[in-house]
Amino acid sequence: MKLTRPAGARAAAFAAALLCAAPALPAPPATPAVHRPPTAAEILAGSTAADWRALDPQNTLYLELATGRVVIELAPQFAPNHVANVLTLAREKYFDGLAIVRAQDNYVVQWADPDGKRPVGTAHRTVAAEFERPLRGLSLTRLPDPDTYAPEVGFVEDFPVAADPGTGRAWLVHCYGMVGAGRDNDVDSGGGTELYVVIGQAPRHLDRNVTLLGRVVSGMELLSVMPRGTGPLGRYERPQQYVPLTSLRVASDVPAAQRTNLEVLRTDTPTFLAYLEARRNRHEEWFKVPAGRVDICNVPVPVRAVASGGSTR
Amino acid sequence: MKLTRPAGARAAAFAAALLCAAPALPAPPATPAVHRPPTAAEILAGSTAADWRALDPQNTLYLELATGRVVIELAPQFAPNHVANVLTLAREKYFDGLAIVRAQDNYVVQWADPDGKRPVGTAHRTVAAEFERPLRGLSLTRLPDPDTYAPEVGFVEDFPVAADPGTGRAWLVHCYGMVGAGRDNDVDSGGGTELYVVIGQAPRHLDRNVTLLGRVVSGMELLSVMPRGTGPLGRYERPQQYVPLTSLRVASDVPAAQRTNLEVLRTDTPTFLAYLEARRNRHEEWFKVPAGRVDICNVPVPVRAVASGGSTR
Repeated sequence: MKLTRPAGARAAAFAAALLCAAPALPAPPATPAVHRPPTAAEILAGSTAADWRALDPQNTLYLELATGRVVIELAPQFAPNHVANVLTLAREKYFDGLAIVRAQDNYVVQWADPDGKRPVGTAHRTVAAEFERPLRGLSLTRLPDPDTYAPEVGFVEDFPVAADPGTGRAWLVHCYGMVGAGRDNDVDSGGGTELYVVIGQAPRHLDRNVTLLGRVVSGMELLSVMPRGTGPLGRYERPQQYVPLTSLRVASDVPAAQRTNLEVLRTDTPTFLAYLEARRNRHEEWFKVPAGRVDICNVPVPVRAVASGGSTR
Repeated sequence: MKLTRPAGARAAAFAAALLCAAPALPAPPATPAVHRPPTAAEILAGSTAADWRALDPQNTLYLELATGRVVIELAPQFAPNHVANVLTLAREKYFDGLAIVRAQDNYVVQWADPDGKRPVGTAHRTVAAEFERPLRGLSLTRLPDPDTYAPEVGFVEDFPVAADPGTGRAWLVHCYGMVGAGRDNDVDSGGGTELYVVIGQAPRHLDRNVTLLGRVVSGMELLSVMPRGTGPLGRYERPQQYVPLTSLRVASDVPAAQRTNLEVLRTDTPTFLAYLEARRNRHEEWFKVPAGRVDICNVPVPVRAVASGGSTR
């Protein structure tokens, strides 16, 4: 049997399956009448404005690198004190001119003050751990499939969350793109002056061991390609290897015309449930054996660019 | 509370936890008497020569890039026909001068003939699918924890494997670093002329949908940093972006002095079981809440460099 399809057709077949890995969704193809459940692309194509919400600029960070902008959404509902501290650090320009000092393959990139001497201004050097919080008060869109690590997993707003109804606790999950506050052996020694981003297989063993405070919603491809450091933990061994941070800003402090206006799919909607089902069982032509299951970290919450102005229309 | 530990101490604390992410293990620290279960580093430090096996050069590929060598171990026990075909393609220099044409963030890099015109010599253009095989005849070192996707998971030799005792079938798992044969919509349209490597969260929905035929045991950090393509599926949109493959060789065809001699930890040993337990429950000082579970794709099988000559001593 010969390969007869041109590369374009092959690409299109894969594209349907993988569309949602891209943070900004391209215009979906026209949807013909089909005799199968809808694909993720088809579900998103049929979504309404109410299915999406704009990022809150007060709760969004722009990490500026020479190669572009990384957009981070913060999670004050899980780490209020860390988020407040990072917002203060960002507003007082603590991070400007610091550097990515570590890139460990299949694990994390991390930025910090290489010298450890920069003053933190009115922020705090350390903040008490916020590894978990009460489940009560959270509206969890649960995944129906078993999770290796936690009794329940799902989404709260657009964040991946694990929960234990037995203990009444909930915590953010270390999926790809999640942002956390590095710490020393003391659980209360973090605070946000060093931040890491997951760039590989979800390191779920870190869950409840370190404070997660946000996630990258755009620009992961700028962080994931950082040259891997050759020192312990992927640390760069020579200062010349450091990758400078141009700045880290709160979006609301950036002139409106310079903002990256993004919307995320609401995870408390029927549209999201349909999208989730399409991730559990893929019906694109390429797939032959639908998994029938999905891991929490294999459900990237769709993000899309919006017209300048940032509101849903 | 202030950060008082110097960066070195912090690095050391992290290092113990993460040591095994590095393909070649550095010399372990001296192990003091401790009143806790051993860490992974301590277990490996106490391993014997019999716990390790050398890679079979007849079954090992060297992908040479301008930036270095990627070592791939093949899995003929799961994909005998694909492996035989790729060995033939490599021996006839099919891959030399081809290119990485695709790098999709949190997904795969893939190399191929950009023009699709290179003859395959005595190899086959396509090979019938080898998505799964009988469980019978395999010795599976089972993980005790639930897996989201499969009834059972574990290791066969050093490969991550899923199994369904109900159907009597087993298949390789799409963990980080696994190597597969790209295909078109037809299940039998692969064959190894295009190969992809997982560079992100395990895309388990691909399990049993595409033929896996090996895994990267060294040099992943050369592939994972490829600039992400901006076309559909992460394809490079301009030929100038292609990353050339210098060559792809069977290790046994490379002069002994130029080989990369590696050993992998045998997964059918008590030492591996102890290592697995140390991955399930981390006892390094940094960790406060041992997970008590582990995902199949969070158990990187240790690999170490050996002295020239390649045999265990």
